[in-house]
Amino acid sequence: MALGQLIIASGEASSDMRYAAGFSTPDDFIWFSAGPCRGVVMSPLEYGRACRSAAPGVKVFTEKEWGGPDRREIICAVARKYGVTGFSVPGDFPLLWADRLRGAGLVIRPEEAPFFPGREKKSGDEVRMITSALRQAEAGCRRAFDVLRETEIARDRTLLWRGAPLTSELLRFEIDSTMMKGGMLASGTICAGGVQGSQPHNQGSGVLHADAPIVMDIFPRSASTGYWGDLTRTVVRGKPADIVKRAYDAVLDARETAKKGIRAGVPGSEIHKIAADVLEKHNFHTGRGEAGDHGFFHGLGHGVGLDIHESPRLSPRGTEPLRPGAVVTVEPGLYYPEWGGIRLEDMVYLDPAGSVRTLTGIEDFLVL
Amino acid sequence: MALGQLIIASGEASSDMRYAAGFSTPDDFIWFSAGPCRGVVMSPLEYGRACRSAAPGVKVFTEKEWGGPDRREIICAVARKYGVTGFSVPGDFPLLWADRLRGAGLVIRPEEAPFFPGREKKSGDEVRMITSALRQAEAGCRRAFDVLRETEIARDRTLLWRGAPLTSELLRFEIDSTMMKGGMLASGTICAGGVQGSQPHNQGSGVLHADAPIVMDIFPRSASTGYWGDLTRTVVRGKPADIVKRAYDAVLDARETAKKGIRAGVPGSEIHKIAADVLEKHNFHTGRGEAGDHGFFHGLGHGVGLDIHESPRLSPRGTEPLRPGAVVTVEPGLYYPEWGGIRLEDMVYLDPAGSVRTLTGIEDFLVL
Repeated sequence: MALGQLIIASGEASSDMRYAAGFSTPDDFIWFSAGPCRGVVMSPLEYGRACRSAAPGVKVFTEKEWGGPDRREIICAVARKYGVTGFSVPGDFPLLWADRLRGAGLVIRPEEAPFFPGREKKSGDEVRMITSALRQAEAGCRRAFDVLRETEIARDRTLLWRGAPLTSELLRFEIDSTMMKGGMLASGTICAGGVQGSQPHNQGSGVLHADAPIVMDIFPRSASTGYWGDLTRTVVRGKPADIVKRAYDAVLDARETAKKGIRAGVPGSEIHKIAADVLEKHNFHTGRGEAGDHGFFHGLGHGVGLDIHESPRLSPRGTEPLRPGAVVTVEPGLYYPEWGGIRLEDMVYLDPAGSVRTLTGIEDFLVL
Repeated sequence: MALGQLIIASGEASSDMRYAAGFSTPDDFIWFSAGPCRGVVMSPLEYGRACRSAAPGVKVFTEKEWGGPDRREIICAVARKYGVTGFSVPGDFPLLWADRLRGAGLVIRPEEAPFFPGREKKSGDEVRMITSALRQAEAGCRRAFDVLRETEIARDRTLLWRGAPLTSELLRFEIDSTMMKGGMLASGTICAGGVQGSQPHNQGSGVLHADAPIVMDIFPRSASTGYWGDLTRTVVRGKPADIVKRAYDAVLDARETAKKGIRAGVPGSEIHKIAADVLEKHNFHTGRGEAGDHGFFHGLGHGVGLDIHESPRLSPRGTEPLRPGAVVTVEPGLYYPEWGGIRLEDMVYLDPAGSVRTLTGIEDFLVL
C-alpha cells in the first residue's frame, strides 16, 4: 500500500507547508508528494508567487491542470495519476478535509510524530537564517539596554526616560521597532518588571521600577525567511536585592552547565535535569504554593526554526535522544511571586561534527 | 444523540478559540460546551491567565480536576459527566485528535459552516474594537501621506525622503511603527508602487517613483483585543497618467455604488456584481492575458473581526444573504500589468436597525 504525503494549509499557518513548498501564503493551498512527483496546486491569485519562489524540485500546478478548483477532485486525481491509495498527513490536518477525502475512498493517516523529521536537522543555510534573526533580537535587546541606561530613577524608584515614566509598553516598542527596521516581525515581546516577571508568560505592563529585575524575552521572526531567533536577558536598573543577585548567579550557572551537557544521543530530559539540579544546588527550590508555582517550572528549552517551538524538547517530556543538526534554546529561569523572575536564554547549535556552538552573541550582566 | 462542542487549539492560531474562551494563548488548550457547562481546561502555566481573562460563563478547570494532563481522558471524562455522546468541532479540528477521540468511542463531527455563526453578527463592543483598530490603520496611512508629501522628486523621478531614496520597505516601516505605538501588531502591510501594484498580493519592494500609483493596504491587529482593521488607499506623488486618473475614478465610483447596495438579505455576490458592473461601465475590462490576470479579479470584500478574513464574503462565491450586524470591507480594484493597480477599501457596518454605516474615517484622494 503506497501512501503519498499531503498538506492543505497556508504557509502562514503551517511551517510544514512553508518548509515543503519553499514559500508562504496567506491562503491555504495543496502540497503533495506522490510517486516521483512533489508539487503544489495554486489558485490564480497565488500562481505567480509560487512559480517565483517554490523550493527546488517542487512542481507548480494550476488548479485547471487537475480539472478545476474542487480540492477533493484534485487530490483524487493526484492519487490516481501517481498510483497511491492515500496520503500521510500532519497531525493538525483539518478534519473536515480528512473526512471528505476518506469519503472519496482515500486512506488519510495522521502522523503522531513531526511530519518532516528532517526539520530537526538544520542545514548550514538554515543555521545562518536563524542566526540572522537572533542578531536582530540582540539588536533589540541592546536598544533596551541603552534605553534603560538612559533612565533616571525618581524618588519613588520609578524609571524616567526622556522626562516621562518608562513603561513596559514603551520599552517593548523600542525593542520591536528596532527589530522591524531589520526586517523582522515582532509580537509577544516580554518586558516584565518586578513581580510580573514571576509569571513566565506575562508580557509586562505599566511603569517599570528601579532595583527590580526586568525580564526581556525577545523572539522575532524574519519577514522574508520565516526563521525565528529567541533571546532572554534579565537586568536590573539600580540596586538588586541580595536574593535577586543569588538567583541570577544560579540561573547563569544552570544555563552554562546545561550547555556543556548537550551532545548527540543524550535525551533532552537529561539536559533539563542538569539545569534543575544546579538550581537546587544553589538552594532555589521548585514547588507550588498558594500564589501558584514557584522555582523552575517550565522546560529548559526547545528547538527553533520555522516554528518558534519545534522539536526537540529539552524538558522532562523530551525522551528522544538529541540529533546532530539541532538548534535549541537553553533558558533556565527562577520565578518567585515575592520578588519576580530571572530567565537567561541562549541558543546553541549541535553541529553535525559533534561540537556545540553558542549562536547567541550578546553579553550577560545583571546590573546596568 | 446529544453532542457537545469542542475546540483544541491555541488562542493565537484559532479565532474560534479566542471568541469562545475570551483570551488568547501561545499553546493549545481545550474548550468545551457540554450540557449546562462551558469550560476550558488549562495547564498550570496558563491557569492564572485563564482565571483572569476567561469570557463570562466560561468555567476554568485545571487538568488535575479531570484526572491529569491526558487530553483524551479529559475529554472522555467531560463527555461522561455531562452525558454527551461526542462533540461537534470546527472544520480545521486536528485530525490526529479526532482519530484518537473516535478511537475512544466518541462521535466527532466537523462543521462545514462557520463553527460560531454568531461571530458574523458583531456586538456594539466588537464594532468599537474593530473601529479602534481601523483608527490605527488610518494613523499609519496618514503617516504615509505625510512621508510622501515630504518627498522630493529626483530627476530620474525616484522619490527622495530626508536625502535618501524612499523605498517600499521604509514607507512600510513608517506605517507599521506608527501603528505599533498604538498597540497594534502589523505584518504584511502592502506598499506597492507602479507595476508591482498590479499584483494584489505583492507587498512591494525597492525604490518608489513619482507619477505612478502606490497601493497601500494596511491591516493591523490589536495586540490586546485581537480585532483587526483593514484599509486601502492608492495615491500618486507627482502627475498621474490619464489612465490612472480614470481608473481611480472608476474604482471610487464602484466602491461607493457597491456600499449603497449593501443591505440585509442581499447575497454578497450581488454586491460584488454591482462593483464589477460599475467598472465595466467605466470601460475597464477584466480578463486574462499573457502577463496574467487583469482588471478586477478578486472578491469585492470580506467580513472582519477576530479574523482578518471571515464571513460573510462579498464575492461571486458569497451566495448567503447578508445578515444584520456584519462588518465587511468594500475594496474594488483595477490591476493592469502595463501601469499598476488602484485599490480603495473602506469598512462598513450593517447595523441591526438596517442602516449601513461607513466605519472608515480617512479621506480619499489620488494626488499628493
